Amino acid sequence: MNKAVFYHAGCPVCVSAEQQFAVALDPARYQVEVVHLGEQKNRVAEAEAAGVKSVPALVVGGAPFHINFGAALADLR
Amino acid sequence: MNKAVFYHAGCPVCVSAEQQFAVALDPARYQVEVVHLGEQKNRVAEAEAAGVKSVPALVVGGAPFHINFGAALADLR
Repeated sequence: MNKAVFYHAGCPVCVSAEQQFAVALDPARYQVEVVHLGEQKNRVAEAEAAGVKSVPALVVGGAPFHINFGAALADLR
Repeated sequence: MNKAVFYHAGCPVCVSAEQQFAVALDPARYQVEVVHLGEQKNRVAEAEAAGVKSVPALVVGGAPFHINFGAALADLR
């Protein structure tokens, strides 16, 4: 099972991406963890280390994929 | 079955997104069409009408999701 992490901040762009996108991944192959960085600020550093620059973003296979633009990571510290 | 269209232009960012992302969608729910806009310029207008501003992008549920940034749509005309 591959692990994917969807980072967001509760913004409208984030919610849209989560509803259309994060839920579209194949549940047989991907376990998706949803992390609200506004509520879990202790995980901002982890997102940054994975290469995340803005949210919403999905980290899958170790690579960050920024999906549209909701907020910069720097604004969530 | 939902239809999703992955628009790209063969760029490295596009290929990465396709390999990690477009293939990760649940095949039981999504039929993914891959469109190379550099080779199918007649479909640029369709992508634009769906709200695509840059590639790679995935249009799902009628909404455009830009995944990282490879090239502007305007440069593919």
